Amino acid sequence: MPEPSLAGPLAVSIGDPAGVGPELIAEAWARRAAEALPVFFACGGAGLLRAAAATRGINLPTQVITSPDEAASVFPGALPVFGDEDCAYRPGAPDAEGARFALASLTLAASLAAEGVVDGLVTGPIAKARLAEVGFDHPGQTEFVAAACGVEPGNAVMMLAGPSVRTVPLTVHVALAEVPRLITTVLIERKGAIVAEALVRDFGIAAPRIAVAALNPHAGEDGRMGDEDARIVAPAIAALRAYGVDASGPHPADALFAPHSRGTFDAALCMYHDQALIPVKALDFDEGVNVTLGLPVIRTSPDHGTAFAIAGKGAARPGAMIAAIRMAGLCAARRWG
Amino acid sequence: MPEPSLAGPLAVSIGDPAGVGPELIAEAWARRAAEALPVFFACGGAGLLRAAAATRGINLPTQVITSPDEAASVFPGALPVFGDEDCAYRPGAPDAEGARFALASLTLAASLAAEGVVDGLVTGPIAKARLAEVGFDHPGQTEFVAAACGVEPGNAVMMLAGPSVRTVPLTVHVALAEVPRLITTVLIERKGAIVAEALVRDFGIAAPRIAVAALNPHAGEDGRMGDEDARIVAPAIAALRAYGVDASGPHPADALFAPHSRGTFDAALCMYHDQALIPVKALDFDEGVNVTLGLPVIRTSPDHGTAFAIAGKGAARPGAMIAAIRMAGLCAARRWG
Repeated sequence: MPEPSLAGPLAVSIGDPAGVGPELIAEAWARRAAEALPVFFACGGAGLLRAAAATRGINLPTQVITSPDEAASVFPGALPVFGDEDCAYRPGAPDAEGARFALASLTLAASLAAEGVVDGLVTGPIAKARLAEVGFDHPGQTEFVAAACGVEPGNAVMMLAGPSVRTVPLTVHVALAEVPRLITTVLIERKGAIVAEALVRDFGIAAPRIAVAALNPHAGEDGRMGDEDARIVAPAIAALRAYGVDASGPHPADALFAPHSRGTFDAALCMYHDQALIPVKALDFDEGVNVTLGLPVIRTSPDHGTAFAIAGKGAARPGAMIAAIRMAGLCAARRWG
Repeated sequence: MPEPSLAGPLAVSIGDPAGVGPELIAEAWARRAAEALPVFFACGGAGLLRAAAATRGINLPTQVITSPDEAASVFPGALPVFGDEDCAYRPGAPDAEGARFALASLTLAASLAAEGVVDGLVTGPIAKARLAEVGFDHPGQTEFVAAACGVEPGNAVMMLAGPSVRTVPLTVHVALAEVPRLITTVLIERKGAIVAEALVRDFGIAAPRIAVAALNPHAGEDGRMGDEDARIVAPAIAALRAYGVDASGPHPADALFAPHSRGTFDAALCMYHDQALIPVKALDFDEGVNVTLGLPVIRTSPDHGTAFAIAGKGAARPGAMIAAIRMAGLCAARRWG
């Protein structure tokens, strides 16, 4: 059984109340002892959480707190809930009221993190298009949290972490056709340095090994399939090595995630969304955690969406939410413990 | 234990003699009973194969045959070898003599297949750059075999098949920047139809389900990340469905290979090399088979390269070669048995 962390409490935003977020937060609290989870509290939603818990057969005690400091003493006996915002529970039926509640919960969590009164935050899954309808104007929660912390979005780096593999998509929510021109030597260097630093500070890896995936198949095979790997990627790897980062590549991306290769690196820098997410979801689907690196706060989220179709039906698997809470606690303990 | 196939013999080309091909062919023959492999013969290389076998502690009897018909009676007691071309065994040290031998072995296997005197062929791994130096002017073995059989290369479709997943890259050895303009509705339709037909004829799947991966992350998310999935991919899926093919998508590619999704389709059409090969190599590395669909002959090969670095050291794992031979036999039995 993993050790509980020694850090302060984590703030957990609820995500879309019509999705699987509320029931999984309740389930994580119910398993707090067996999973040795760190102390966390929900940002609003006391009634919502109790209703969602009931759909899984969980009788969830909640207790409203007025300061994060109170969370530790409440946590063993009830799920602490900070703030009195609440929302009706209508699983599978997202609406504007729910989107406003999700945004309020996220805003509260991010502001607590930015103020430094919590050691980290875990964000429940939202529906971006729905949040956009009520005024959310960021590409995703990562950028929202970065902005709340005063970090330039380009310096907030998304990492997907599972038991088998950790990957970092250097470009994320853009068309594939845009990727080749967005990949620059400076981008790879800058994000590679942030990843290396975070692996030391937050993951306790003294000398992290960074594998860089090639943009083109077979890493371009001497220019026969594109010259970007030689022209753009390789110089970034050389620069990272010159800074003292143990970077290698460009590696043909298909071979990089084969079993015998996965143990040779601590994180893989990938050039685009699917290159990074296919291996994590194929190998670690139920336990994948989305971690934001480069922030003054630890932030994680489960690597799945709102799953409206199964919300309230007892079918959503809690592994990724539990893994996200555990990872936030462990990283916070390493950084501040 | 799998059933042996009832089809005729398979021709096996040796691949680069300095790579792992010869030792893995010997190992497959040595395990013919335990693995219930179909009858196969090697195209040349009797002395080479014996020398390679010895590096794995296998005392390999070989017997030269002058017609594929003789293979079945020889196979239980010795590895049948068709033709008297041979080559010195210098593992890990590829040279021009070896490249010429590899090309001769492949040419022999392809011509036997084209003449219809064997039911299928299995090709050992080659080093394309080295073969090019001795006059090989095809992008790969797939195109070479297609040309030998009089099939237009665009109608020979590469599929990667493992125990977990089957994928088809619609574009293969091209730079990533070229992919978006190479993906056309006609390409997806044509290759999708070839795949569906092959799954019925050669894989015995009565009503194959074809999942089509999206080009862009999140399948473009309503055009926010590229319009190709709506403009090019979706119409191809509609056309395939109109022909009676059970095609679905475009599916976000990361979710498509997650555990709960993999059981919902028989093959995934992928837009480019890494999208197709990352999941197969991550999940099925040691048993991945490269199958060429759309040919008048069954053709498979192990989904790995020459691995010069470990040739002759007893370290190469025979799973993919054994899987390639077994799959060729099973497909041939279904098509002609």
